[in-house]
Amino acid sequence: MNTSPTGIYYGDYLRLDRLLSAQAPESDRLGRPAHDEMLFIVVHQAYELWFKQILYEMESVREVFARPVVDDRQIGSVVHTLHRIAAILKLVIGHLDVLETMTPLDFLDFRDLLYPSSGFQSLQFRLIEQGLGLRRDDRLDFDKKPFDVRLDETDRKRLRKAGAGPSLSDQIDQWLARTPFVELGGYRFQEEYRRAVDEMLERDAAIVGESPALDESGRKVQLDGLAAAQKRFAAIFDEKRHARQGGWRFTLKSLQAALFINLYRDEPALQLPFRMLSLLMDIDETLTAWRYRHALMVQRMIGMKLGTGGSSGHDYLRQTADRHRIFGDLFALSTFLIPRSALPPLPEAVRRAMTYRYAEDPEA
Amino acid sequence: MNTSPTGIYYGDYLRLDRLLSAQAPESDRLGRPAHDEMLFIVVHQAYELWFKQILYEMESVREVFARPVVDDRQIGSVVHTLHRIAAILKLVIGHLDVLETMTPLDFLDFRDLLYPSSGFQSLQFRLIEQGLGLRRDDRLDFDKKPFDVRLDETDRKRLRKAGAGPSLSDQIDQWLARTPFVELGGYRFQEEYRRAVDEMLERDAAIVGESPALDESGRKVQLDGLAAAQKRFAAIFDEKRHARQGGWRFTLKSLQAALFINLYRDEPALQLPFRMLSLLMDIDETLTAWRYRHALMVQRMIGMKLGTGGSSGHDYLRQTADRHRIFGDLFALSTFLIPRSALPPLPEAVRRAMTYRYAEDPEA
Amino acid sequence: MNTSPTGIYYGDYLRLDRLLSAQAPESDRLGRPAHDEMLFIVVHQAYELWFKQILYEMESVREVFARPVVDDRQIGSVVHTLHRIAAILKLVIGHLDVLETMTPLDFLDFRDLLYPSSGFQSLQFRLIEQGLGLRRDDRLDFDKKPFDVRLDETDRKRLRKAGAGPSLSDQIDQWLARTPFVELGGYRFQEEYRRAVDEMLERDAAIVGESPALDESGRKVQLDGLAAAQKRFAAIFDEKRHARQGGWRFTLKSLQAALFINLYRDEPALQLPFRMLSLLMDIDETLTAWRYRHALMVQRMIGMKLGTGGSSGHDYLRQTADRHRIFGDLFALSTFLIPRSALPPLPEAVRRAMTYRYAEDPEA
Amino acid sequence: MNTSPTGIYYGDYLRLDRLLSAQAPESDRLGRPAHDEMLFIVVHQAYELWFKQILYEMESVREVFARPVVDDRQIGSVVHTLHRIAAILKLVIGHLDVLETMTPLDFLDFRDLLYPSSGFQSLQFRLIEQGLGLRRDDRLDFDKKPFDVRLDETDRKRLRKAGAGPSLSDQIDQWLARTPFVELGGYRFQEEYRRAVDEMLERDAAIVGESPALDESGRKVQLDGLAAAQKRFAAIFDEKRHARQGGWRFTLKSLQAALFINLYRDEPALQLPFRMLSLLMDIDETLTAWRYRHALMVQRMIGMKLGTGGSSGHDYLRQTADRHRIFGDLFALSTFLIPRSALPPLPEAVRRAMTYRYAEDPEA
Repeated sequence: MNTSPTGIYYGDYLRLDRLLSAQAPESDRLGRPAHDEMLFIVVHQAYELWFKQILYEMESVREVFARPVVDDRQIGSVVHTLHRIAAILKLVIGHLDVLETMTPLDFLDFRDLLYPSSGFQSLQFRLIEQGLGLRRDDRLDFDKKPFDVRLDETDRKRLRKAGAGPSLSDQIDQWLARTPFVELGGYRFQEEYRRAVDEMLERDAAIVGESPALDESGRKVQLDGLAAAQKRFAAIFDEKRHARQGGWRFTLKSLQAALFINLYRDEPALQLPFRMLSLLMDIDETLTAWRYRHALMVQRMIGMKLGTGGSSGHDYLRQTADRHRIFGDLFALSTFLIPRSALPPLPEAVRRAMTYRYAEDPEA
Repeated sequence: MNTSPTGIYYGDYLRLDRLLSAQAPESDRLGRPAHDEMLFIVVHQAYELWFKQILYEMESVREVFARPVVDDRQIGSVVHTLHRIAAILKLVIGHLDVLETMTPLDFLDFRDLLYPSSGFQSLQFRLIEQGLGLRRDDRLDFDKKPFDVRLDETDRKRLRKAGAGPSLSDQIDQWLARTPFVELGGYRFQEEYRRAVDEMLERDAAIVGESPALDESGRKVQLDGLAAAQKRFAAIFDEKRHARQGGWRFTLKSLQAALFINLYRDEPALQLPFRMLSLLMDIDETLTAWRYRHALMVQRMIGMKLGTGGSSGHDYLRQTADRHRIFGDLFALSTFLIPRSALPPLPEAVRRAMTYRYAEDPEA
Repeated sequence: MNTSPTGIYYGDYLRLDRLLSAQAPESDRLGRPAHDEMLFIVVHQAYELWFKQILYEMESVREVFARPVVDDRQIGSVVHTLHRIAAILKLVIGHLDVLETMTPLDFLDFRDLLYPSSGFQSLQFRLIEQGLGLRRDDRLDFDKKPFDVRLDETDRKRLRKAGAGPSLSDQIDQWLARTPFVELGGYRFQEEYRRAVDEMLERDAAIVGESPALDESGRKVQLDGLAAAQKRFAAIFDEKRHARQGGWRFTLKSLQAALFINLYRDEPALQLPFRMLSLLMDIDETLTAWRYRHALMVQRMIGMKLGTGGSSGHDYLRQTADRHRIFGDLFALSTFLIPRSALPPLPEAVRRAMTYRYAEDPEA
Repeated sequence: MNTSPTGIYYGDYLRLDRLLSAQAPESDRLGRPAHDEMLFIVVHQAYELWFKQILYEMESVREVFARPVVDDRQIGSVVHTLHRIAAILKLVIGHLDVLETMTPLDFLDFRDLLYPSSGFQSLQFRLIEQGLGLRRDDRLDFDKKPFDVRLDETDRKRLRKAGAGPSLSDQIDQWLARTPFVELGGYRFQEEYRRAVDEMLERDAAIVGESPALDESGRKVQLDGLAAAQKRFAAIFDEKRHARQGGWRFTLKSLQAALFINLYRDEPALQLPFRMLSLLMDIDETLTAWRYRHALMVQRMIGMKLGTGGSSGHDYLRQTADRHRIFGDLFALSTFLIPRSALPPLPEAVRRAMTYRYAEDPEA
């Protein structure tokens, strides 16, 4: 219902006067017009619009997890929102196809005018990384200086302030740690799973031992592999090993819950949590792919190092692609999966707890 | 565990001998080599590979719905599979970017050698359409002849045979009709919703009647709009109007259930059904967009009709884009949505039935 | 060289204060916050940023063609710019994947607040269409009213003013008409081509007449087809038929030049003109595909008409997809291509004129 | 003209019997059906179809450059073909979006059945890399063994045999070295360019020396930067430095020609060579992005290494992304570009040689 006599006009609604007057090429200001600076500005402004949207969506997800109890009704909308963020990041990667229509020579026409401003100074991008869970210490130093030395005082403060509370990664860690099903009644997922893993590895060892197709050296290779697997699995069962191994971010309890969700994802109450964990991985992976492609683009524009030599902007960017991963723990979990055929069935009471109430008792 | 001493070789596993010997350009056979025929063949073979995969995935979805009772555990995997089909269709659209690197002149080098074979003869594509729910009578005739006149006898029979059972659209219709929550205990969604719609429209009429901002003619326009809305909504409440209106495929009961799912999608038991309906729309829309872009490509290759004149391959294709929609009912439902602010809250018993069992009773 | 002591800061350079303060949801202003309105605003602002960029790029192309003589040195950069515009349009289509993460119910939360503003009021989009060559009379009326009735007075005037000069389509028409090679020395492309077409059709008729594989009715079908082809080709040879046929936008002379460029595209002087014509088709086709997908999206949001009934926003949009084509003439040309095997070879003098000067005379 | 009475049937033409019977899941053969193995097979078969097409297109490009004199008429079609290869590679990257709908747990259902077959054994992919120019010694060893130890004897031989002649990189190197314009009449590009670079750097040094905005330390930083630039530029002027620096693949002469093409790309005879070099970079970059995204996907499927530890399949793949670059020289060239404002104008005779013959002398 809109009962205003004239209503809203498209251009006013979108503040087009403000939006479309915000492109101010330095090359124009200095009387050295460089055609492609407009593209450069528009691509980066489009990025910043999308960063604003991503932060806005992240905020709504973090509000859900900030509550003492997370309502199951909201997991659907969290999944929806994470899916949107992933879709935006895919679109953002697509911007490189447009930016790369700028040639290095065209960039050179205005490149020095922008110095020392740089994408490193995008506060919003830093806020996204930090909000997802990238901590100060996770970040690669640039030229042995902390990453935020290039931000101005105001932005540095805003970033620090925004980093005060728990990140999405922290929230997910806490939420996973509260998963009720991994210890329900007498059921202990950790014990059941450990037994299943042991049995699987023993069974495999027996097969290897008896297989007529293997010669001695082949047999040894396989048995060594099984021994290594056993050792590897220990990290998911044992607090000390988990701590000693280093590199993990989530608590052992959360990791086990995430494993449980992955393994029993078809149970009604786990279907959306499973989607949620997958989408966090999608987001992390897409962000990583973007950093890498961005590094390739910079290399093309600025030139590639040959032979030996010090680090460069491009090298730095390329290294952050891997280094600035946030949900690496979720990717690492694949190592601990066992085939469904070896998976222990859930006790009826646990399964039942994860079904919808109507299912057995429609009029309840 | 693979205990074979040598194991499988990549090329054998993928049957590359067979796969990579299946490209036989007619222009080579006839001694008139045309460079781009290879691309033409490879694109269409890639299509057919993906059609096979789509049919394979559709089969697994249809098996789930073929059972007398659909296990909630499987809805997660149905959603997963539909998501995969949508992803494949997006990839399939992307093939046009490659095919369009062929120019009309290059196509002309071998175009007449292929006559009268044509994409119309893709049995697998017809099976996909039919399996999703496109019925014989839904199809646009081509040159006043039934669409399958161009298939050979064997393919025509296979198509007919495959069309004997219920399509996915039929299955979804039946599944929706069994949604328990729309009539649960004393709750009748249809009545509650009708009342909410009536109240909303009355409230709007009152606002319009009193609004000082509207002059007489403005007021009339708005009131006419509200009267039209009331009439439109009747189709979703009344069996007779639903039947009389024509064009609907789903029963009234199923439509109401789909509406319910859309409106209360945050309830745990509706989150995945909502995703499922959305994905069916994604699939329908992507298929439609593909048909349309395919028609544009054909037009570019073959030429565009100017002035008046009979229909052509391109016109036919373009018309099927809209005409061969399958889940149009789901798109039409948007007309019947009311804002969340006007939505009647669910009775506690209905909400409860849609939660997970553990939620209130963790040890149940 | 930037010798300023502090230099430019990223956020200042991109006017982020202005850009990121330009999102003002109506639903917030009215105290009825609707989460997805932000996405709606950001998508449309991103569109408008890209429209600005497209207009900026189009301007530089139109400047090249506005000069009395078009320097061959600039055709390379025209091709480059058209390629960029095509890349931007592909990115713009990708925005729909993000916008469609908004559900119809979420849209309903703020949809009526925006009335009557609409994408129809995007001045920049109208400027793009008009600049490319969409004329007032080409446009489909909406509700029997001229399309610009929905623009405000200022925008209507700006649009009219911008439409005063020749469009890109006009410029290309004029540029094609001046192609020197189609009448060079004693060479007349039109005559040579006409002869080749006649010979080809006669040769085909002879084959049909003698083919033992054809029965009488098959022979008749083929011969009728050849007669129809002969008639069709007349439009490209004869001023009167060209005029009578209607629907053509380019002059006969320009069409013949475009045909020449397509047929002899490998000659050095035609390689870039050929790329240019192809890119104009890419742009037209991508714009068309976008209109169509946009119409599908609107349909999903607003609902689909069933049964009979008046036109709607969605129907209008879908119809403009085909109707608002701009370079249809270039697509129609495919009808007039003949296979390379039937193509008359160019006289040496004409070929020579189209080579680079160094080729035969390196020290010239 | 097709005068056969019945003509070709779509399914026969595409050898669908062969194509669609080539999917033979191991999990079916062993009676342990795993749903997602079909997807795994189809994705890899689609890859191999596209690899065949890429090899086919590369072959036609390499034939052009294998001739003693490269006809300018064919550069247009080389550009066209490289553009197609780039488009195919983009499509190939898109396949990952589909493959990633397979979860790690679903992969585990059949993963061990495939051992030890692996994508490393794709002969066609090795042929593509090798044909483009990846040499045996460029390749990263895997587990200290040569990369081709995993190919079978037949494939290893085919690969070696195919590697006998010059790669595309070799051919481009040779073709660039013959560019006539860099030494034409009395013109020596190398000398002109060296002078321009020196002048530019001196001018910059003067500005830095006089700038009141710089303090001593700022001045020093800038002057050090200019000295470094001077040293860097030496590699492009001096045979010995070029050789000593290492890492270069192209000869100095070819690098200078490529630089010339980049700097004067608007001259008619350089427009397509410029496009060609850009497309070689696109292909290299897209291949690199694919390797990286493939590595991310493998990591997701198999698990991510945490803490310290030996290398893994994923690490290897990730490292090849950068290491297996082929046209790195072209990317490195950006370092040697100078702004157009500092570029020495071409002598009239050189410009003239690069124009079309008709331009000054239409009836020639």
